[in-house]
Amino acid sequence: MKLASGLNLAEHTHGRHFLHIPGPTNVPDRILRAMSLPTIDHRGPGFRRLGLKVLEGLRAVFRCEGPVIVYPASGTGAWEAALVNTLAPGETVLMAETGHFAGLWAGLAGRIGLAPRVLPGDWRHGADPVAIEAALRDDRAHAIQAVCVVHNETSTGVTTDVPAIRRAIDAAGHPALLMVDTVSGLGSLEYRHDEWGVDVSIAASQKGLMLPPGLGLNALSEKALARSRSARATLPRAFWDWSPIIAANAQGSWPSTPATNLLYGLAEALDMLFEQGLDEVVERHHRHGEATRAAVRAWGLPLNCAGSARASDVVTAVVVPPNDAGDADALRRLALERFDLSLGTGLGRLAGGVFRIGHVGDLNDLSLLGALAGVEMSLDSLGVPHQSGGVQAAMSVLAR
Amino acid sequence: MKLASGLNLAEHTHGRHFLHIPGPTNVPDRILRAMSLPTIDHRGPGFRRLGLKVLEGLRAVFRCEGPVIVYPASGTGAWEAALVNTLAPGETVLMAETGHFAGLWAGLAGRIGLAPRVLPGDWRHGADPVAIEAALRDDRAHAIQAVCVVHNETSTGVTTDVPAIRRAIDAAGHPALLMVDTVSGLGSLEYRHDEWGVDVSIAASQKGLMLPPGLGLNALSEKALARSRSARATLPRAFWDWSPIIAANAQGSWPSTPATNLLYGLAEALDMLFEQGLDEVVERHHRHGEATRAAVRAWGLPLNCAGSARASDVVTAVVVPPNDAGDADALRRLALERFDLSLGTGLGRLAGGVFRIGHVGDLNDLSLLGALAGVEMSLDSLGVPHQSGGVQAAMSVLAR
Amino acid sequence: MKLASGLNLAEHTHGRHFLHIPGPTNVPDRILRAMSLPTIDHRGPGFRRLGLKVLEGLRAVFRCEGPVIVYPASGTGAWEAALVNTLAPGETVLMAETGHFAGLWAGLAGRIGLAPRVLPGDWRHGADPVAIEAALRDDRAHAIQAVCVVHNETSTGVTTDVPAIRRAIDAAGHPALLMVDTVSGLGSLEYRHDEWGVDVSIAASQKGLMLPPGLGLNALSEKALARSRSARATLPRAFWDWSPIIAANAQGSWPSTPATNLLYGLAEALDMLFEQGLDEVVERHHRHGEATRAAVRAWGLPLNCAGSARASDVVTAVVVPPNDAGDADALRRLALERFDLSLGTGLGRLAGGVFRIGHVGDLNDLSLLGALAGVEMSLDSLGVPHQSGGVQAAMSVLAR
Amino acid sequence: MKLASGLNLAEHTHGRHFLHIPGPTNVPDRILRAMSLPTIDHRGPGFRRLGLKVLEGLRAVFRCEGPVIVYPASGTGAWEAALVNTLAPGETVLMAETGHFAGLWAGLAGRIGLAPRVLPGDWRHGADPVAIEAALRDDRAHAIQAVCVVHNETSTGVTTDVPAIRRAIDAAGHPALLMVDTVSGLGSLEYRHDEWGVDVSIAASQKGLMLPPGLGLNALSEKALARSRSARATLPRAFWDWSPIIAANAQGSWPSTPATNLLYGLAEALDMLFEQGLDEVVERHHRHGEATRAAVRAWGLPLNCAGSARASDVVTAVVVPPNDAGDADALRRLALERFDLSLGTGLGRLAGGVFRIGHVGDLNDLSLLGALAGVEMSLDSLGVPHQSGGVQAAMSVLAR
Repeated sequence: MKLASGLNLAEHTHGRHFLHIPGPTNVPDRILRAMSLPTIDHRGPGFRRLGLKVLEGLRAVFRCEGPVIVYPASGTGAWEAALVNTLAPGETVLMAETGHFAGLWAGLAGRIGLAPRVLPGDWRHGADPVAIEAALRDDRAHAIQAVCVVHNETSTGVTTDVPAIRRAIDAAGHPALLMVDTVSGLGSLEYRHDEWGVDVSIAASQKGLMLPPGLGLNALSEKALARSRSARATLPRAFWDWSPIIAANAQGSWPSTPATNLLYGLAEALDMLFEQGLDEVVERHHRHGEATRAAVRAWGLPLNCAGSARASDVVTAVVVPPNDAGDADALRRLALERFDLSLGTGLGRLAGGVFRIGHVGDLNDLSLLGALAGVEMSLDSLGVPHQSGGVQAAMSVLAR
Repeated sequence: MKLASGLNLAEHTHGRHFLHIPGPTNVPDRILRAMSLPTIDHRGPGFRRLGLKVLEGLRAVFRCEGPVIVYPASGTGAWEAALVNTLAPGETVLMAETGHFAGLWAGLAGRIGLAPRVLPGDWRHGADPVAIEAALRDDRAHAIQAVCVVHNETSTGVTTDVPAIRRAIDAAGHPALLMVDTVSGLGSLEYRHDEWGVDVSIAASQKGLMLPPGLGLNALSEKALARSRSARATLPRAFWDWSPIIAANAQGSWPSTPATNLLYGLAEALDMLFEQGLDEVVERHHRHGEATRAAVRAWGLPLNCAGSARASDVVTAVVVPPNDAGDADALRRLALERFDLSLGTGLGRLAGGVFRIGHVGDLNDLSLLGALAGVEMSLDSLGVPHQSGGVQAAMSVLAR
Repeated sequence: MKLASGLNLAEHTHGRHFLHIPGPTNVPDRILRAMSLPTIDHRGPGFRRLGLKVLEGLRAVFRCEGPVIVYPASGTGAWEAALVNTLAPGETVLMAETGHFAGLWAGLAGRIGLAPRVLPGDWRHGADPVAIEAALRDDRAHAIQAVCVVHNETSTGVTTDVPAIRRAIDAAGHPALLMVDTVSGLGSLEYRHDEWGVDVSIAASQKGLMLPPGLGLNALSEKALARSRSARATLPRAFWDWSPIIAANAQGSWPSTPATNLLYGLAEALDMLFEQGLDEVVERHHRHGEATRAAVRAWGLPLNCAGSARASDVVTAVVVPPNDAGDADALRRLALERFDLSLGTGLGRLAGGVFRIGHVGDLNDLSLLGALAGVEMSLDSLGVPHQSGGVQAAMSVLAR
Repeated sequence: MKLASGLNLAEHTHGRHFLHIPGPTNVPDRILRAMSLPTIDHRGPGFRRLGLKVLEGLRAVFRCEGPVIVYPASGTGAWEAALVNTLAPGETVLMAETGHFAGLWAGLAGRIGLAPRVLPGDWRHGADPVAIEAALRDDRAHAIQAVCVVHNETSTGVTTDVPAIRRAIDAAGHPALLMVDTVSGLGSLEYRHDEWGVDVSIAASQKGLMLPPGLGLNALSEKALARSRSARATLPRAFWDWSPIIAANAQGSWPSTPATNLLYGLAEALDMLFEQGLDEVVERHHRHGEATRAAVRAWGLPLNCAGSARASDVVTAVVVPPNDAGDADALRRLALERFDLSLGTGLGRLAGGVFRIGHVGDLNDLSLLGALAGVEMSLDSLGVPHQSGGVQAAMSVLAR
């Protein structure tokens, strides 16, 4: 009977870590407590009640009527699942390259045998409905089977206007499926699977759902489901196959062993979201996005996001212009070592030039301000040219 | 700041649940506590230390020198991973049908485009090395690319003699890969990936590793790794692809978001196994297997396992002969409702006729005896014909 | 951010400890989770709600209408509190010496300046109403200010018939206060403060209330309260003084810092008791008492309790007759080292000759049977002369 | 098997509560995890190891060689214990009225039968060594048995120079005992029981020791111990009696049931303090005190502490001058409701005019800045006249 073996995850010996990467996010104690319930028989009656409860709750969060699939997997797995359930080898998918994660998804599509056609982007805008409509109008033979966009591009801090993409597809009169990665949007930004006409939504547990990583999600339209059941969807699939999961889910169970304790946490997370109200959750993230952007502007540092209309309320990517003191990663290291603050790194082409402030999931005004103070003191300590007053500016937004 | 929303998993209001299904197993409090550590940046220095630690520990548990792959997935996913990394569409795999899970694996192989050739079995024996050797000798063209066996067939309570299978392949001079599902064997039964000449071992978190479900594992031989890197391994793969994982693992990281908190738990689980000593863990499971079988024999109920040489020390499948009082599932229901004891159900062709007593993972003599007392009282209450004295017989074994 | 420093409380590395001392008892995970809520401002509105809730719940458990006092203290402190609030230096208290704890209470009374008159007992019976009535009748001058009895004598496994003591006092027409130590009776045995005419009930957190030690309780009658407010109660008191506590409790607060997290646990414990139903809790303890006594009788070992009418359903004290193999403490050591089972030691004059099996608080049939199996195997291993079949006998009781 | 009954301590649904009262303080997760270990037999070998460990660690924190007494009680209880172990009814104690808590202690002394002689103070200074020396010189008959001072007066944010008090007593050549309440100083401010010549130090668990409330502490000099063992110490005592506790502590046990799970937490807390280093802990609190005072000065609000030499690094009492917007309590309410920030209330004569910012225990730079931001935004929202820039000023201190 031993407390533990001494797992040591960081050097800081006192106070709470400030986790401000854009996911995984802070897991609330309520959820950690739920996850510590004893593992039970996944074929017993208690588990079935749990299963039905989380599946119903997820439909409410996706705002959809159709099935939601829960995999013991990451968002990457859920990307793969969306594709292998609906498409055939060699088929074309139109993918908007809005950032690092959009690029990874396109790469994955290629590796499983699809032909991704990538609409290039500057990593400072969301997916472009005009370009998508044009590409679809050009595709008279309807070779394109799916349009894939990322709702909230975690690497750039820019969102895509999903309803506009839907309108673009409709305007082109094109039958392609619309697949949307809302891994870092679900549970934090407004999202409406059914109303927005999305065919497959892809999400994961470790962002707005406030859970540790380990669950990948798909939400399906009737059209997507029909396609997966048709003879056309010939990509091999077994683990990812929606059909046996949907069949078992009707009784609250899964065909293979589900991630029991993460599902406990999910049940609690859903309750927390509903207690707050989904609209209030969105509004809270918006306030925090506004406050963070006010801080960045006060520092005089450029936002990576072009314009403010599509700036993400989940993550703010901040540009560190070339300077003698240090790049974005030097700043991140200092923030971690000195202030126990984790900031997101610049990914792919943004490496070194950008750091990201996550403001998603379970946080509140004061913890956000603590984090922004950590950024401002780190800019100061490292000597990155900037104006002071960022925290003050954020306080002005939040005190309103 | 609320404790919780009132998640209620069972009707019993006092005392601890006795979870005696053969997995998921009881998660020790030490592991639950480790899993409740705050989620950290999976790209930061603390996480890298964690990653390297668990990967090194897993090699010690598999007793292998080569890479071990950790997926945020279930054992089913790890089955799929073993196949898609090494094989090509349409290739033949020889699969020994030792029980329900062996059958599911064969089904999965078929669904992802392989041609499983199934050696039928009676679900009361392990995989037959004689039959495997004969099949391989017959396969002069070496169409068979892999021999797939289940080390501990969770549905039947029977183990396979893995070294004997290796010798059978060698005796036949056949180049097929040897793939072994040790999902419910690793961390409880003796297992030696390298010494036994296994090419891909498949395991999962929720059995002898004492974690909740959510991690799937592959351990690789050089031969398996070379095959996966060759042009021959043409099954499409992305999420399951070993290569980017092995590359990232060298620095203790993963290419996509790993299941952070389950990895915390894994680090703790590995420490617990090493503190006890792997040999002692095996010996403990053996004592508990012996005690359980002594109880079943005293009850006068047939063991599903034919003979005792290959009886599993992880799970005991007990036959409930046809009788007027109730079948195996009626017994299980009564045990759950009356004594808060979860027993494993009969799967597939054993449904109704067999129940399974799990004795794997974190338990001790007194909790096993409590569970056996629950079975004996349930037999009594339901009126299933049996002799009393099972607990007494088990006590005699354990008091030695 | 470290998991822990490696606190190690026992040598056993796997499975759960079987804590079968008669308190502290097993703390259910629900209560441990409640206790892990963040400490809050004990002068804030959330705390006041908590305070009012636990005070109301405690009245329901004591079955009283008057105030219940909660001290951050042990049961020993609650003994002292009962006396110093109501009595004056040099006053006589009549104390029935039913066992070790009754004796300790009498000693404490002496040390704080009272004159305890002890009715001697054989430690195998409860307090004797006949002797008490006789003593009170003899006390024509009404020198005796209080009659003090222990409801459930934890050291002997014998209960006192509290209503009979009340009737004895009334029959003698004596004005003495009735003080009852129900430290190990509350929340497990039937207890009715008001209906039984008790003036001060003394209890603590670590028995039937299923909490860790750290809270001492007093429940008061109007008569006791009036006495404490009268000029007669001249023993010095400050920390223990009921008055400021009762005044502050009206708003759900305390005059000095209360034991916040233990109160969280108490709120949860009360909910658990009410969910089960107090009557059902009493009945469950009775079944477990019966099963334990059946086991002891089957072993052929004497019960310390004379007769069965007043045998405690909370703890069974078992006599180990002199023998060559080892005494009661040798048996306890073996049970702990070999089976991770904690049994209660013999206290005072019972040291070495008696061990005690606790069956109080959060346990269920199977954990009790596991514990009894541990006792039986320990008797066997040590070689203490006994009959086998104790567990079997207990199963017969529980399977009914 | 239920998660919990829904205990709800506050209205805020997301993010962490900012607890900035000067105790109880934030309990670190490491300590909460330690407290969730299963309760064990307090008479068994594992518990003895624990007992010896915490007693040794406490001596290191008090920096004393003699006994430290641990009560399951609050600091109020530890006050009473210090007095009843050493003094006799009617004896005089000299008490410096530095604030609310010093006053409560004097009141308690009176209620247990002592004659407190109170040196009045303005609640803005620590105890005055000059006045104490004068009083002692006047006391030629040595009627004064003890000098009682509060090291860190939690209600005023002012510390007393304990070595100066010792020098004053020595200069007067007076034999009185020196008793020091360091309830909110131990584990955060420098404290040296032996070197400073303190006879009885009084402390508690819920401040710098980072535990929930529930433990009261006494550290003893040889002189105090000798007095307690002499015939002079005639105040009645039992629960508080040092002697049986010291005797039992030699074997790591206690005469009555100790607060097991709080002791687990204490073992962990001591490890945390030693990992950080006591000097570093003091230095950290000093930086946080400096930063907080810089913020208050920037706001243009008066500090309650007169001068800065004795300002507390544990708590800052801030004066809210009379104004139309609202008093200190209105500010506290707004901070709690709007920003989930708990601030300390003004106590006694400071009620309404002062609020207190706690900066003690387990916090770090960013959480302190979050709290200060909450104060500044609350001042702003309520409309209390002040300058902005407090957080900025604190950041300047912390970024150095």
